Amino acid sequence: MAFKPYGLPMSTNTTRAMICLHEKEVDFELVPVNVFAAEHKQPPFLSKNPFGLIPLLEDGDLTLFESRAITAYVAEKFKETGADLIRHKDAKEAALVKVWTEVESHYYEPAVSPIIYEYFVAPFQGKEPDKSVIDTNVEKLKKVLDVYEAKLSSTKYLAGDFYSLADLSNVSETHYLMQTPCASTVNERPHVKAWWEDISSRPAFTKVVGGMTFGQNQEE
Amino acid sequence: MAFKPYGLPMSTNTTRAMICLHEKEVDFELVPVNVFAAEHKQPPFLSKNPFGLIPLLEDGDLTLFESRAITAYVAEKFKETGADLIRHKDAKEAALVKVWTEVESHYYEPAVSPIIYEYFVAPFQGKEPDKSVIDTNVEKLKKVLDVYEAKLSSTKYLAGDFYSLADLSNVSETHYLMQTPCASTVNERPHVKAWWEDISSRPAFTKVVGGMTFGQNQEE
Repeated sequence: MAFKPYGLPMSTNTTRAMICLHEKEVDFELVPVNVFAAEHKQPPFLSKNPFGLIPLLEDGDLTLFESRAITAYVAEKFKETGADLIRHKDAKEAALVKVWTEVESHYYEPAVSPIIYEYFVAPFQGKEPDKSVIDTNVEKLKKVLDVYEAKLSSTKYLAGDFYSLADLSNVSETHYLMQTPCASTVNERPHVKAWWEDISSRPAFTKVVGGMTFGQNQEE
Repeated sequence: MAFKPYGLPMSTNTTRAMICLHEKEVDFELVPVNVFAAEHKQPPFLSKNPFGLIPLLEDGDLTLFESRAITAYVAEKFKETGADLIRHKDAKEAALVKVWTEVESHYYEPAVSPIIYEYFVAPFQGKEPDKSVIDTNVEKLKKVLDVYEAKLSSTKYLAGDFYSLADLSNVSETHYLMQTPCASTVNERPHVKAWWEDISSRPAFTKVVGGMTFGQNQEE
């Protein structure tokens, strides 16, 4: 098997890459990384990714890290297979996919990540969730979702009337968000809610994270 | 003129886009945005970018925001002109450009930005630079630059032995960093220093930010 993704199915960055591989109908098997034993912070892994983070993708002699670089590579390499995630036949649509993928990366994820951390990782470490961190980030998230709501009231998906990497990039963290009381931020916005129901019902998504809750590791 | 970038030459995100346009030999004129009068937070601008941030690029009826989406679009559209910033003839090189562009976005910029803010923006607002913020981010920056140093000791540029978007993405913020006492973080690492001297001597860079210090606005 040429494609070797390394990671952990409970990691949102790992599932972002896995969902993309499924969308492109690529045959792969996840190589589990034992982050609890800090395997990713030790030499064999560090030689592949000097930042010591998952996921990682090996394709023959090519080693890639950073989930959004991995998804962009996979979507380009298999552009004729499965869903067209980068709109390679239309330069304008392709550009808008890039814009809204950056939006996920620079606005959505930075607001959602701390919320997920407080609700899931903190208790896992024996700590109480920090309400002030949650509140601050819910306010940030609401502003981002107001923009999503406006955009999704004029186009079916973020970059236009087509599912793309711009949507896919959001699903892993939203999956966890929807298991917290902050799911209301999505549910209160009808277009965002409809969009979430749509993108979370895609087979590539359900195959990877369907039904999974934090801490579960159904693909290992 | 088809290409209309909007922004401010003192903004690192604006100059990232401008330098890319110069590298690709694209004829353009910057449309200045009066951020001091919050022009970017008002309806005409907000209808183009709902997040109210510069830069913005209009190419005919296409409107793009997010500097890294703009540079990727420009580099792709003019792939046969000027420097090949995306290595479009080699899928592996192209993938590595994406990896190291993500590294700038997720590791380098988040460490450098707060340092620039404290040294330049805080005094501009009548505040003292917060030494603890600077110290925290210098520590983060050193870790990122250690990875850069190791990489640049094996390849001339970040993604390989070729100048690309992965390098270009770093120049705007590094230009300001080098005007602070934290320039030592670059100067103490011989390969990073040589790389910086190389990429900051490119005509596209000097045309946009050469000699500019914070607050100057030489292209308006």
